[in-house]
Amino acid sequence: MGGAGMIDVALVHYPVLNRQGEEIGAAVTGLDIHDIARTARTYGVERFFVVTPYQAQQELVRELVRHWSTGPGGRRNPDRGEALSLVRVAADLAEVKAAAGEGALFVATSAREGEGCLGWDEARGLALSNRRLVLLFGTANGLAPAALAQAHHRLAPIRGTGDYNHLPVRSAVAIALDRLGGYRKPEAGRQRTER
Amino acid sequence: MGGAGMIDVALVHYPVLNRQGEEIGAAVTGLDIHDIARTARTYGVERFFVVTPYQAQQELVRELVRHWSTGPGGRRNPDRGEALSLVRVAADLAEVKAAAGEGALFVATSAREGEGCLGWDEARGLALSNRRLVLLFGTANGLAPAALAQAHHRLAPIRGTGDYNHLPVRSAVAIALDRLGGYRKPEAGRQRTER
Repeated sequence: MGGAGMIDVALVHYPVLNRQGEEIGAAVTGLDIHDIARTARTYGVERFFVVTPYQAQQELVRELVRHWSTGPGGRRNPDRGEALSLVRVAADLAEVKAAAGEGALFVATSAREGEGCLGWDEARGLALSNRRLVLLFGTANGLAPAALAQAHHRLAPIRGTGDYNHLPVRSAVAIALDRLGGYRKPEAGRQRTER
Repeated sequence: MGGAGMIDVALVHYPVLNRQGEEIGAAVTGLDIHDIARTARTYGVERFFVVTPYQAQQELVRELVRHWSTGPGGRRNPDRGEALSLVRVAADLAEVKAAAGEGALFVATSAREGEGCLGWDEARGLALSNRRLVLLFGTANGLAPAALAQAHHRLAPIRGTGDYNHLPVRSAVAIALDRLGGYRKPEAGRQRTER
């Protein structure tokens, strides 16, 4: 089927930046997990890694996933369980790399411009290739340099129509997955030209 | 400038459907307001109508907007204030129609297939025209027939890579605005061919 079949998503809570540009660890937010899991499931993402070094936060994520997959939440709402079953807890990016396996390509996202950023067409090309992509998203004010340094590529920022670039990470994940895999589907087989 | 310059977004809390397909009024969620306002601001949306007939809920929205625009939240976080200043409270779609003015085209979104749905390329054509588009999104399990009936067009559902169609409304708004206005920007002037 091609497309987003070989994509993993990693939501990084450490190391990220705060508003002052300092490196911090951010708290896990239940709604990030729900929203990103549902979007990931929609776009055929294989695994959604929630990356946090804090054991109490890791346990919170596992508890949430249990509730909504095998627990009472999942019985009431099986669609939610289907989405949350994609979630994997990881302490750091090294664990994600071990799980993703040899040859996986780590692609970091950022709202900030950077040198040598991968364009979205190039990224789509990679998504259509046979290599596994692991898309890294940062919570708080985005991935810290130490996290960016662990990626093979950095994606160009998502641009709207102006200079405002304060998208929620939940929205950024949705837009990125749609650009990489989903959008072409409804017009499959048709030519489309950018205006 | 073309693109998403003439787009309004309306988040409808009544009439919408529950999981059983019954018409209900849904509660306003603070996070919907924050996320959609930030995405709307990113994509140059002019106004974000929060549609609810319940006065207590309307007052909650106004209070939230006050806090984050002229209040303490906005002083600490001016970007958030800039986004939330797009919010308008409306009791129903008739109020939105009055505010949008003559000639505005109401385009409903739905996760369900329907007859005569507008394709995304056609919708993008409308977004590039001089007519104002008002995009209607439903909370809970989506817009009720009574709300769909008030729209001029209904957009094709957002499809990922399979049959799972339980996107959060926050993600659906992000994807829709990116498809209608933002995505072409980074590749302006280049030809792109769908594969």
